[in-house]
Parts: sequence; C-alpha cells; structure tokens
Amino acid sequence: MQRHYIEFTTPDTAIMMADTVSMPANNEVLISVHHAGVNRADLLQRLGLYPPPADASPIPGLEIAGEVVAIGEDVTYCSVGDRVCALAHGGGYASTAMVREDHCLLLPEPLSSEQGAALPEALLTVWYNVFERGMLAHNETALIHGGSSGIGSLGIQMVRAMGANALSTAGSEERCAAVTKLGADFVANHREGNLFEQFKAAGYAEQINVILDIAGGDLMQANLDLAAPDGRIVCIGVMRGMQSEINIATLFMKRLTLTGSTLRRLDTASRAACFQAIREHIWPEVLAGNIAPVIDSTFPLADVLAAHEYMRSGHHFGKLLLDCQVS
Amino acid sequence: MQRHYIEFTTPDTAIMMADTVSMPANNEVLISVHHAGVNRADLLQRLGLYPPPADASPIPGLEIAGEVVAIGEDVTYCSVGDRVCALAHGGGYASTAMVREDHCLLLPEPLSSEQGAALPEALLTVWYNVFERGMLAHNETALIHGGSSGIGSLGIQMVRAMGANALSTAGSEERCAAVTKLGADFVANHREGNLFEQFKAAGYAEQINVILDIAGGDLMQANLDLAAPDGRIVCIGVMRGMQSEINIATLFMKRLTLTGSTLRRLDTASRAACFQAIREHIWPEVLAGNIAPVIDSTFPLADVLAAHEYMRSGHHFGKLLLDCQVS
Repeated sequence: MQRHYIEFTTPDTAIMMADTVSMPANNEVLISVHHAGVNRADLLQRLGLYPPPADASPIPGLEIAGEVVAIGEDVTYCSVGDRVCALAHGGGYASTAMVREDHCLLLPEPLSSEQGAALPEALLTVWYNVFERGMLAHNETALIHGGSSGIGSLGIQMVRAMGANALSTAGSEERCAAVTKLGADFVANHREGNLFEQFKAAGYAEQINVILDIAGGDLMQANLDLAAPDGRIVCIGVMRGMQSEINIATLFMKRLTLTGSTLRRLDTASRAACFQAIREHIWPEVLAGNIAPVIDSTFPLADVLAAHEYMRSGHHFGKLLLDCQVS
Repeated sequence: MQRHYIEFTTPDTAIMMADTVSMPANNEVLISVHHAGVNRADLLQRLGLYPPPADASPIPGLEIAGEVVAIGEDVTYCSVGDRVCALAHGGGYASTAMVREDHCLLLPEPLSSEQGAALPEALLTVWYNVFERGMLAHNETALIHGGSSGIGSLGIQMVRAMGANALSTAGSEERCAAVTKLGADFVANHREGNLFEQFKAAGYAEQINVILDIAGGDLMQANLDLAAPDGRIVCIGVMRGMQSEINIATLFMKRLTLTGSTLRRLDTASRAACFQAIREHIWPEVLAGNIAPVIDSTFPLADVLAAHEYMRSGHHFGKLLLDCQVS
C-alpha cells in the first residue's frame, strides 16, 4: 500500500512524495487520512524553528481524521472501517498515517471528517493545560487568550461545558463579537488599549483563576495582574515574543503559579491519560453538539503552503484543515 | 499584666512602649516571650515597604519562644508553664505575645529558647514552599538559594532529613565551605562568575527538581535554565530586584512551574496544616538533633535597630535573635 506525503525541502517548497506504508505494530492503528489539521507548530517546523522530537515522524502534521484501514494485534478500541480522529506524532500531512490506539477518538455520525480533524490538538491542549496543569474547577473563571484561534474557540466552549466562566481576547471588535457568541462572558480587544484596564473595567481584575496564554512577550505581566489569589497562568505560546519581564513580588504576594507545556514533548502515557479524561468529560458534549470546532476553511494537501500563509496572516477564524485524499 | 513592646515611630527610631495584656480567647495562648527571631520582613515593615495585613498586630515580630502564661478555654495542645516556640501574626518584638494554639510547637529540653525562636519562620517557610508548593519528593534534588541565611541553613538540613539532595548558593568561598558542612552536595558562589555554568560544571544542569529562590531579579533565568523537566521554582524573596526577565519558551518546553508565596498572607488554616505536617515529619528530627538552627547572635530587644542593621549588612550567618525578657 502506497502513501503520499508532504516534505518541505526548503522553508518555501512543499513537495508531494510517495512511499510504501508499513503495517501497524501492537497498539498501532493505520488510518486512511481524509483531513489533517494545520497547527502553528507545523509552520514553525517548516521554518526550522521547532524541530520534531527524535522519536517523531519528520513528516509534519499533528492531528488527523479518517478511516481505520489496518490495526495492530492488541488493538481493541477501534476496528477496520471505523471513522476516527487522532493525535499523530508527526506524519499527518499524508494520505495515510500511523497512530497509537489510545490517541484515537471514535467519530460517529453526524460528525464530519473535517470536524474530527479540527479537534485532537485543541482538545488535548486545552484539557492538559487548563484542566490538568491549571486545575480549573467548577464555577471558577478562566481567561482563554486568542478566542478566534482553533485552540481558543474550542477552549471557551470546553470551559463552559465544564461549568466554569470563560473570558477571552481577540484582535478586532468584529472578532470580539464573534468570540462572545461562543460563550465568553467578556472579550477584550488586545489591539485597543490596556488589557488589564479592560478586564478591570468589566469587573474581572484579580478575579481570574486560570489563564491560558498564547502570547507571552509584553502581555505576561497583565496576566499576573489579572490573576486572582492562588491563580494559575499556563503558557503555551510566545506569539508576542519569548522574553517577558515579570514582577516576582506579584507572583508570591498572590501565590500565583506560572507554568506551561508543549504537547509535542509530553510523553505518550500522559497524552493517553488526557484522551481517557476527554472521552469521559468532553466527548459526550461534542457528540451532543454542545462543543463544536470552529472551522475557517479547508485546503487541498498540495496547497499546504497557501494554508500556512493564511494562518501566518492571522486573518483566519478557527481551524484550517487539509484535505488529504490524494487521487 | 503589663507588656513591653517595640514601636518604630520612624524608620530609624525604635521606642520601647508598654500597655496592658489582654487574656487569651478560645484557642489562643499567651506567651511570656524569652526570644524573638528577626526576619527580613521585619526590616521591610520598619521601612514602610511591607505593611502588615489588616488582621495582624502592627507590632513587628513573626516568631517567638518562651513560656505559656495563660491559655484560652479550648486549648488542649499546651498548658501553663510549658515551653513553646510559635509563629506570631505580628507582635513578637515584645515581652509577651498572643498566638494561636495550632501555631505552637512544644519545646522540650535540651532545646533552648534561642533555638526555639530561630525555628518557626524558617520551618514554615521551607515546609510550605519546598514540600507543599514545590512537592519535593524523596531522592529528588533541591537548590536552596542563600544557604547562609536563616531559611537557607535550615532548609538544607530539612531537605536532607526528608531524603532529598541539597544544593545551595552563598556569597564567598568561606561561606560556601560552611554551607557545605550543613549537608549540601554542592554550593555555588553567587558572587563569582555565572551561576548556571557553576552548577553545569558540577553536573547539575537540568538536574534540579525544586528551587527555593530568595533573589529574583537577574538570577531568575538561571533558575529556569537549571531546572529539570517538570521542575518547580518557588520564589519567596526579591533581594536582587522585583523585576525579572524570563524566557517563556524555557518554561513550557520543560513544563516548569514558577510559583511563590509569602507566609504573612497565608491563611491561618493553611499555616496550622503546615504545623501539623512539621510535627509529624520534621519535629522528631529537630528533637533528635538532626536538624538544628544556625544562630549568629542575640541582641537585647532594646537594640533591635542594631540587629536590623546587622541583617541588612549581610555579614551574619544564620539567625539573628532578640532577647525579649525586659526587666
């Protein structure tokens, strides 16, 4: 069986390659990929700024949806012919991909393959960072920065589904209005005026228990100032710069916790534990339609550079996907 | 019954005042103070840089040892005539002080009153920050900055007593040697060369699970660089400055946790829980002589300004105490 996959020979060249697929080992599942999600990590990998871990596939692509075409000996969660979505340890920009059984979610009707491919990275990222590391509890308040991103738009819905209050940020009045419709109680425009002052005026100064931050840079101190006593700030991105100046006294006077993670470097057992928690707490809400991925648009796999350029422009709202069915 | 106490009428004037002592309410214990510990927080309070919380005594002094002279109705832990040491919510720079029963530790022979007064702040600070917030586990490695301070010198011993490895820092070769004798495996001289490079040369780069930091300022990034994956950095002071520039990517690539606290703002129930844990895990080691406070010197209560000036000079090694028995 053949697969087609994308290789970035230079940061500006994507070539479609082909090779022969190996068969699944124990606990592995071979998937005919219908759609793959595009993530900022893929852009950084293409540009040479975020090399894949040693044990990962060098082919980009971290999340997929499609049909199971072969399973390893010990696989019990899914069968050949099942529709699934999954987290891939690289290798998602391809017509087939090998994933771990315990990194899959069964994808029943009426969920589409596009919807499936838009979910794994955002589900795992929000679950691990907001609920595991950030320990967001019922009735607490979470600020999910970047509400118009794939992670942000899903994160707001997950926070609401778990019985907590959601706040967010976006880059225009129009986007703030759209993010509010996802269930956020208040959305600040990070391009207009002081972020702390906007939340303060809305009554949220030192009222925020968990903050999921994708910006870093000059906005970090605002997070510390906004956090409630015993608040947790979880960093997953540095879109405004890696270097942040923070006031350590703010940190210890309020007993704040500043932490973060990157899903790519999380061990497989921890990822599998997140999938199990998601199956229990979040997946029923997805199946019931209470949590739905926001999808901006889908590009053919061969047009991956256009998809990346669009993500880089920041003009998208929600997830970008690749159609990986190569004829 | 009368008490004498210290009032700072200006940052440079300490006056001995007198008033009448009230009787203990439920769960309170009145102590005839023999010795009080001097803490950096007292200096900052005197200088107007660290105002006491609203519910605290305006009189400085956070830890004492002496004899119980009266107890409230529900008190069961200690009796009139017992020797105890205790954490005070202010009011320790005085001939008597009122404390909570659950903030006391019985002080049997051969422990002296000086030793008792040198213990509560350091015990609580290290326990809460290194073992509760930092979750230091058996066989892990902790870096306790400032090994020649009261907190540092006791912290190294507590880390060792709990079966973990201790590293430290000090400001001269002589001090590094003295701190090594307290049980540290390696002590870096923070006045000589690059801190990260010193620990790296000794084989500890990215091998440190918990860091207790008193410096802040320009040393914070070294903490992040030294921490092992999943490491915890707990900040309790900003002796090198409140503002720190940190690399957020270091934080999330290694899943670090940066947190901190100040004992004065911790609620009484959390403090009482720490005392209970200390009674169970640490106090037996103190009674057995395996953990002993390092005492630099004792000043008469009336000479409190000289004691503060000495602490400010940084020339002390271990705790400074006040003799509070006013004739």
